[in-house]
Amino acid sequence: MYLKIDHIGIAVRSLEAALKVYCQGFGLRTDHVEEVADQKARVATLPVGETRLELLEAMEEDSPVGKFIARRGEGLHHICFRVENLEEELKKLKAAGVRLIDEMPRPGARDCLVAFIHPSSTGGVLVELSQSNSTK
Amino acid sequence: MYLKIDHIGIAVRSLEAALKVYCQGFGLRTDHVEEVADQKARVATLPVGETRLELLEAMEEDSPVGKFIARRGEGLHHICFRVENLEEELKKLKAAGVRLIDEMPRPGARDCLVAFIHPSSTGGVLVELSQSNSTK
Repeated sequence: MYLKIDHIGIAVRSLEAALKVYCQGFGLRTDHVEEVADQKARVATLPVGETRLELLEAMEEDSPVGKFIARRGEGLHHICFRVENLEEELKKLKAAGVRLIDEMPRPGARDCLVAFIHPSSTGGVLVELSQSNSTK
Repeated sequence: MYLKIDHIGIAVRSLEAALKVYCQGFGLRTDHVEEVADQKARVATLPVGETRLELLEAMEEDSPVGKFIARRGEGLHHICFRVENLEEELKKLKAAGVRLIDEMPRPGARDCLVAFIHPSSTGGVLVELSQSNSTK
């Protein structure tokens, strides 16, 4: 079951410049900033209703976000759906012929299990699924 | 005030193919399909939590969605925030130096007023703001 959009990932060149617009212009607030070492990215999250924006700045050019920006420029990077049972959803997607990046759930941020779906199956959208460990 | 993400627009080559994945693969359901004549687009919406996905298929190559796909391929196209008072938010954004596509609210779908913000100010994201006429 798909419960909600957990977050929307946005690749930006400068977290500082993006936060200025999203906080001062749009009036949103940052609830969390962290460096995600294995993604070589700095991440700031901004709640909006039941979801949040996730601004992603590459710490190195040779990182997923750095390569995305080099190829496509700044902009919408991925969407993440919060699901009830990630393993079950991955099985359903596989059965429907959807191309998975992660065949099995793996640990993600915020005590979640996550898996990514390949954009070639989803109309060009990098889709992440996440399940909170507290609702396993 | 920013209430929620109203919808996430996704540009797709084929609405039929995309609906197959999002409905059969992800298990979402379509609550609305329409042809938006002035955008030369066919649009299907799929609720997820308090928001919805908006799948956009160009009816002509020479249309906003058709040009987007020609330039960047399929994928995430825009995000729309639901706001309480659109005119007030546009004034705040202008004062913060954010580049607006629409300086004043204009009529949109579903009995809403809408305005677009230029991606050059928002980290490459085409942002739509919408206000429901029923909560004006």
